[in-house]
Amino acid sequence: MYRIGIDLGGTNIAAGLVSEDMKILAKVSVPTGASRAPECIVDDMAAACRRLVSEAGLNIGDIAAVGIASPGIANHDDGVIEYANNLPFRRFPIASMLRERFPVDNIRVENDANAAAWGEAVSGAAKGTSNSVMITLGTGVGGGIIIDGKVMSGFNYAGGELGHIVIRAGGRKCSCGRCGCWEAYSSATALTAMTEEKIEECRAAGRPTKMTEFAAKRGKVSARTAYEAMRAGDEAAAEVVDVYSQYLACGLTNIVNIFQPEVISIGGGISNEKDALLEPLLPIIRKEQYGGGIVKETRIRIAELGNDAGIIGAAFLGL
Amino acid sequence: MYRIGIDLGGTNIAAGLVSEDMKILAKVSVPTGASRAPECIVDDMAAACRRLVSEAGLNIGDIAAVGIASPGIANHDDGVIEYANNLPFRRFPIASMLRERFPVDNIRVENDANAAAWGEAVSGAAKGTSNSVMITLGTGVGGGIIIDGKVMSGFNYAGGELGHIVIRAGGRKCSCGRCGCWEAYSSATALTAMTEEKIEECRAAGRPTKMTEFAAKRGKVSARTAYEAMRAGDEAAAEVVDVYSQYLACGLTNIVNIFQPEVISIGGGISNEKDALLEPLLPIIRKEQYGGGIVKETRIRIAELGNDAGIIGAAFLGL
Repeated sequence: MYRIGIDLGGTNIAAGLVSEDMKILAKVSVPTGASRAPECIVDDMAAACRRLVSEAGLNIGDIAAVGIASPGIANHDDGVIEYANNLPFRRFPIASMLRERFPVDNIRVENDANAAAWGEAVSGAAKGTSNSVMITLGTGVGGGIIIDGKVMSGFNYAGGELGHIVIRAGGRKCSCGRCGCWEAYSSATALTAMTEEKIEECRAAGRPTKMTEFAAKRGKVSARTAYEAMRAGDEAAAEVVDVYSQYLACGLTNIVNIFQPEVISIGGGISNEKDALLEPLLPIIRKEQYGGGIVKETRIRIAELGNDAGIIGAAFLGL
Repeated sequence: MYRIGIDLGGTNIAAGLVSEDMKILAKVSVPTGASRAPECIVDDMAAACRRLVSEAGLNIGDIAAVGIASPGIANHDDGVIEYANNLPFRRFPIASMLRERFPVDNIRVENDANAAAWGEAVSGAAKGTSNSVMITLGTGVGGGIIIDGKVMSGFNYAGGELGHIVIRAGGRKCSCGRCGCWEAYSSATALTAMTEEKIEECRAAGRPTKMTEFAAKRGKVSARTAYEAMRAGDEAAAEVVDVYSQYLACGLTNIVNIFQPEVISIGGGISNEKDALLEPLLPIIRKEQYGGGIVKETRIRIAELGNDAGIIGAAFLGL
């Protein structure tokens, strides 16, 4: 038997045929066309599923389950997308709509951050654990929480908004309206802003910094700029990374104190920095965590599945 | 059948005989004598159980379960207290030790904040819900988390340290060593400190405040002082309550965003302020919570069981 995982994004629908040993055998990607009617989007999801099946020489009867990783609030009990920011879904019964078009009994939906966390839990950085948290450092800070081998999303299916924990009351304005959210300090967007501020500070002070060159080379300041310049020995860049690491570690220590997970995995673009990202975090977390030394320590790891986490997690929802 | 709940504190052991409809029928309390050997403490726990049984005219066979609410890290799977700050327990198999002295099969142990949260969930402010959080505003800020009808404590049994979420990075020093923990802003200790600071500020500025009188009447500044003076129309006191409410609401909004519980119940000494405590919090939480208006709203309630929450929760552990 095989499974299909669908990563439904604001830009693309990525669908993958997944084997029972959790390998992606084939993938297709089509534009979401998020401004269309929801039914049209589901038509294309079903077409992607059929294409995966036929190109692999399979029949629909070979598909044990289909999972959908969706942005927004996904009611995994009823298979309904309650709400999504960037898609035209309001209380939309996506599982049954897809089932009409691609008749597999076991069709589930889950929030994309939760699905990715589930993917890392079944087949990635948190494999073999029952309690883990995945943090995604991208445009925002996303969170997925696995407790006792199940996705935790609260009674509204809208919990797990770990990026919207205030870590600095009265601090930087967050996209959600609050001030001082973790997301406003630890997202790629926030790191880019901090880097821009430091470059401006250097310029005003006549202090040279390699961040200017790396930004020019790539055409813009990004979340990579400070890490790249730091690796080239730039001190101002190291200061940016230091401040960023302090805030990231602060939020991660909060997660440790709240959940005591076995593993926290870190995904998203910034996680490509790998050890340069992790190394400054660990001593801060070890020092600051509650009851340090008494209890087993949470491992902090880079996520392993990259962009495939959502597809793999979705394919194995409810496992 | 009946149950016994034991609230094991640093000062007293309180044990209660509880009916199957969750009423406390009788209670005994003996000093803990925390400096003694752990075996002596268990001897006294067993004696308290026997006394409850005999004074009620029952036999040990009438007791379906005994639960122990303990400070510190309680391993509820193995019935072991891994560690407690203020008691002589290190990896102490308290359930089996009590079973030797008071032979009931079903003896469980749970962290006291978790047991209290469980009590509120089965019989108090969160009755009828499967997802709730209890916050205790006392010397510190304690938290107990119920998810899908089960106590959540992480794989180390040490999670749920909701008081040790940093809400103001670099802020007030917390007892745990971190700076800016929620506990350092929202505990009774913190409110008392804020009140003392405001009284001092008023004194320095020659601004009269009724807080001085209320403190003098009770012999000291306490967490009640600002609320009492505010009710008497004192403006400086209202300022203290306003700042306190902002921080408390900030931490509660974090809890909403993380867990989306059906109910958050607030216990501990400060919860005696009831509506004066709750009223300023609700508009802040409604405004600041993530996805406000889209999802069902978490109810914020005063805890109902007071000091009995631990006994009732312990008696019904594993229900």
